[in-house]
Amino acid sequence: MSYRAPVADIMFALNHAAGFAPALAEGVYGDLTDDVVAAVIEEAGKFATDVLAPLNTVGDHSGSVFKDGVVTTPPGWKEAYHAWSKAGWNGLATPAKWGGQELPYAVNAACTEMWNSAALAFGLGPLLTMAGIDALIAHGSDALKQAYLPKLVSGEWMGTMQLTEPQAGSDVGALRTRAERVADGSYRLTGQKIFITYGEHDLTDNIIHLVLARLPDAPAGTKGISLFLVPKFLLNPDGSLGARNDARAHSIEHKLGIHASPTCTMVYGDQGGAVGFLIGEENRGMACMFTMMNEARLAVGLQGVAIAERATQQAVAYARERKQGRASGVSTGSSPIIAHPDVKRMLLTMRALTGAARAICYATAVALDRAHRSTDEAVHKAAQERASLLTPVAKAFSTDAGNTVASLGVQVHGGMGFIEETGAAQHFRDARILPIYEGTNGIQAIDLVTRKLPLSGGATVATAITEMKRTVAAVGAASDQAFGWTDIRLQDAVAALERATHWLLGTRNDLDTALAGATPYLRLFALAAGGTLLAQEALVAKQLAGADAAARIAIARFFAENLAIEAGSLERTVVEGADSVTTADAALAS
Amino acid sequence: MSYRAPVADIMFALNHAAGFAPALAEGVYGDLTDDVVAAVIEEAGKFATDVLAPLNTVGDHSGSVFKDGVVTTPPGWKEAYHAWSKAGWNGLATPAKWGGQELPYAVNAACTEMWNSAALAFGLGPLLTMAGIDALIAHGSDALKQAYLPKLVSGEWMGTMQLTEPQAGSDVGALRTRAERVADGSYRLTGQKIFITYGEHDLTDNIIHLVLARLPDAPAGTKGISLFLVPKFLLNPDGSLGARNDARAHSIEHKLGIHASPTCTMVYGDQGGAVGFLIGEENRGMACMFTMMNEARLAVGLQGVAIAERATQQAVAYARERKQGRASGVSTGSSPIIAHPDVKRMLLTMRALTGAARAICYATAVALDRAHRSTDEAVHKAAQERASLLTPVAKAFSTDAGNTVASLGVQVHGGMGFIEETGAAQHFRDARILPIYEGTNGIQAIDLVTRKLPLSGGATVATAITEMKRTVAAVGAASDQAFGWTDIRLQDAVAALERATHWLLGTRNDLDTALAGATPYLRLFALAAGGTLLAQEALVAKQLAGADAAARIAIARFFAENLAIEAGSLERTVVEGADSVTTADAALAS
Repeated sequence: MSYRAPVADIMFALNHAAGFAPALAEGVYGDLTDDVVAAVIEEAGKFATDVLAPLNTVGDHSGSVFKDGVVTTPPGWKEAYHAWSKAGWNGLATPAKWGGQELPYAVNAACTEMWNSAALAFGLGPLLTMAGIDALIAHGSDALKQAYLPKLVSGEWMGTMQLTEPQAGSDVGALRTRAERVADGSYRLTGQKIFITYGEHDLTDNIIHLVLARLPDAPAGTKGISLFLVPKFLLNPDGSLGARNDARAHSIEHKLGIHASPTCTMVYGDQGGAVGFLIGEENRGMACMFTMMNEARLAVGLQGVAIAERATQQAVAYARERKQGRASGVSTGSSPIIAHPDVKRMLLTMRALTGAARAICYATAVALDRAHRSTDEAVHKAAQERASLLTPVAKAFSTDAGNTVASLGVQVHGGMGFIEETGAAQHFRDARILPIYEGTNGIQAIDLVTRKLPLSGGATVATAITEMKRTVAAVGAASDQAFGWTDIRLQDAVAALERATHWLLGTRNDLDTALAGATPYLRLFALAAGGTLLAQEALVAKQLAGADAAARIAIARFFAENLAIEAGSLERTVVEGADSVTTADAALAS
Repeated sequence: MSYRAPVADIMFALNHAAGFAPALAEGVYGDLTDDVVAAVIEEAGKFATDVLAPLNTVGDHSGSVFKDGVVTTPPGWKEAYHAWSKAGWNGLATPAKWGGQELPYAVNAACTEMWNSAALAFGLGPLLTMAGIDALIAHGSDALKQAYLPKLVSGEWMGTMQLTEPQAGSDVGALRTRAERVADGSYRLTGQKIFITYGEHDLTDNIIHLVLARLPDAPAGTKGISLFLVPKFLLNPDGSLGARNDARAHSIEHKLGIHASPTCTMVYGDQGGAVGFLIGEENRGMACMFTMMNEARLAVGLQGVAIAERATQQAVAYARERKQGRASGVSTGSSPIIAHPDVKRMLLTMRALTGAARAICYATAVALDRAHRSTDEAVHKAAQERASLLTPVAKAFSTDAGNTVASLGVQVHGGMGFIEETGAAQHFRDARILPIYEGTNGIQAIDLVTRKLPLSGGATVATAITEMKRTVAAVGAASDQAFGWTDIRLQDAVAALERATHWLLGTRNDLDTALAGATPYLRLFALAAGGTLLAQEALVAKQLAGADAAARIAIARFFAENLAIEAGSLERTVVEGADSVTTADAALAS
């Protein structure tokens, strides 16, 4: 069972849950028209469906192979990458100045979902390249930009993000890779990086590494980290490829999933030092890295949506085909398993989680667009903070959802799900990295609670909650029986979120108490946000009186009555459960 | 990181949560003493730790290999199996009459956990053999028993359970394998079975297949199924191995996990018909199969406990070693990640789920012992029904817990968790089959709601709830601050269970409504049962004033305040959420 890009669903979520249509109407996107947007997403959907999706299985089976320092990607991947970059997909949201198409980031988010649904291990490379491009645009010197951006934007070259070292994972400040100043203004790097995605491969002629390293006189911790651009091949004055740099892949990892994505150990300076060029200022590398990481975090959230969508499509198709037992009310023959309530519950859970995660991720992308494109300082700040608030939720909730949905996908297949040939297991394996990389989901929750809730003295989160309440009220006002208990359950969820938020904002002197509740709080936030966004989609669908109104109402209702309903207990866990964590050392002592 | 059998924990759960100590004191086990029990479990723990646990990695890497009809198990597995069976572990709970040691089934359950923690793919083979032995004892003719039982009990031969066919998975009644009567009283089988665990291997000289098949004149569905004993090698009159039977493995599956356990497609009658011997009566095979399945279901629940225990051990050890960041209140250096509240929350969740699942499984085993060993009809019936009630909960909750815990184990390891060499990913892969085989967890929930709640007109479940209430009251009466909100949260959970139970018992005319809530109901039951059993352990530990009282109270409290707290929303999902499932067809139409 392959993947078919859900273009109509994606457009609907973008326009009516994430607020893209209103932003377009307000003129946020200048003279862009919805025809153009629809055409781009349609075209991307075709490419994802026809070209990329068939690569997913061979990517898993063959994997990327390392031999003598060379990484060979699976059969067909190189050709697909070239077709993909040639079609201009890599620079979709990049400014025209650097060769991009300057389309909304939200449109790129929709495309990112589709590339990754088609083949997660494929989508991951461009995802990191795009994040690197943004960092270079934001912080690089003109000379660096002119030398490297055009070919990065076109996709002729790819980029990497290099933070992690054996002793420095979540704690980036512990990294040890050294950078020495050289008289010509460049630097020489020595050290080792691990877990470097697409650190070496054969998709492009050159690879542009963005590497965090420490100057000899740098302060300890994160304040002594600088960001360097380290090309695999140095450039000649005319821009052509010159000498091989002293930066090499030492090996690749044998991983649970995303086998086609080469995860490299990189060695710098084995022969005296890798030539690097400073991005931004010395010792200010963390700020540059955050530019990359924030975008990458949202993109990883979209990977969660992507794997959830693909797993759901496969499970629904299987549940329609597979016959076992007889559904109640049927008198002869066996029924497709989709007719059994327990299977239906699993499939609805998959659909509802996928839709909620998609809505949250796209809403984050629209907020980013508003921030980037606004000239009004107050509007910019509000949108930027909205995006900052939503990013950890988008990353953590969507990737958790990706895992839950992929696991349910296996379950719907029964014994067949455990057989690798079926493909459901690949989604389950591939999805497992998502809650880990680009900041573990625990780190996202801590970021949300300690850095994002306090934005503008709590006003940013308060505004978000107010909007949720507006949706709840609208569901109530719709007085449509088909919504069932949707408004009541969502009202409870939003109220629980509001109380837990107030409580957390008041605990800032007791950090451990806040940290102990961070993960349940993030989930509470996502359930309230996701539930109200799905309800908003349902309300619009009802208004538009399209054929899918019944479906969207059913999904919103299922989410509210079966998933958002967890909000009350999550609130208690946040507000009352911290002691049970912080005082429990005896239980972990042996 | 290898496995160390948690003998003390196991003994404590057995004695004080599962009620083994009271049963021993009451004389349920005759003159058996706790010294003997402790010695057996200690010895099993040593064998699991020293001999079996080191096989787990090689089992995963090498897997079982199929070539020309022959299955070769991984290096070292055959030797380990011989040492294991020679030590008498296979017949631990089998009547002495058949060469067993006639020890309590509860003791065997504890051992089953340890074999499977050490190597899940290893433990699975004996688990099925033991289930087959029980079916043969319960339903076989004397001649069959005398011919086959001694070598099955000693472990010299292994057994299989063969239900599944391509069109007959959860719906066993759809099977087509045919059995023809032969003049000598035997039968000839033709057909195909799939997903047959240890259907072919090199661990033993003979393999005794228990195969469900249909007679030519059998009624349709489950009422026309008969059970046959089909040996790989027929026996000569003197009991020695004779001709090769017409029953062969055609291939083995390429699976997500448990690679060492060969999952075979079996072909019967390629050369005219496999010789089979009827077990029990014609067309009464389902009853015989249920004898096997019920025991196997509890054993699979124990596999869930087993994988959870192993994953937890590995994660706790890693979290103590791995240093990242600095915990609050620490002034210099980096801290082991176990000191971070978010990691602590994950580890406590792992411990709490493992402990609750273990307590539920062992309590089921003790109920089975009471049922088997009681001569009083009323006592027998009550115990039998208790075991019947708990079996689906033990199977489904424990295997879900195994998956949750194994996934958290990956997460605690961060990026290292996704690298296969770390081993955390193997547990995650291995665990994934558990909610599927021996009746999917959805089937377990349906069994609980439709067959088990109505036992004795609802009195069986009512008694179980009454016992839970007693424990809640005892926690309240203990008036120990260390319990935090344990009694309040458990009281809520048990009350929610009671209301949902009453409601479900009243919906029996509306089957779909009951079925839609079956899975959340099973979880609700398990949270109330698991929470009160952990609380009971904590109360006993407090009374005994042992060193681990603080740890057990902390785990009980964590479970109550962070996991059992979900009970209220589960109740609503059961009672109010069915419509959101049954009326949602529009959402699954495309």
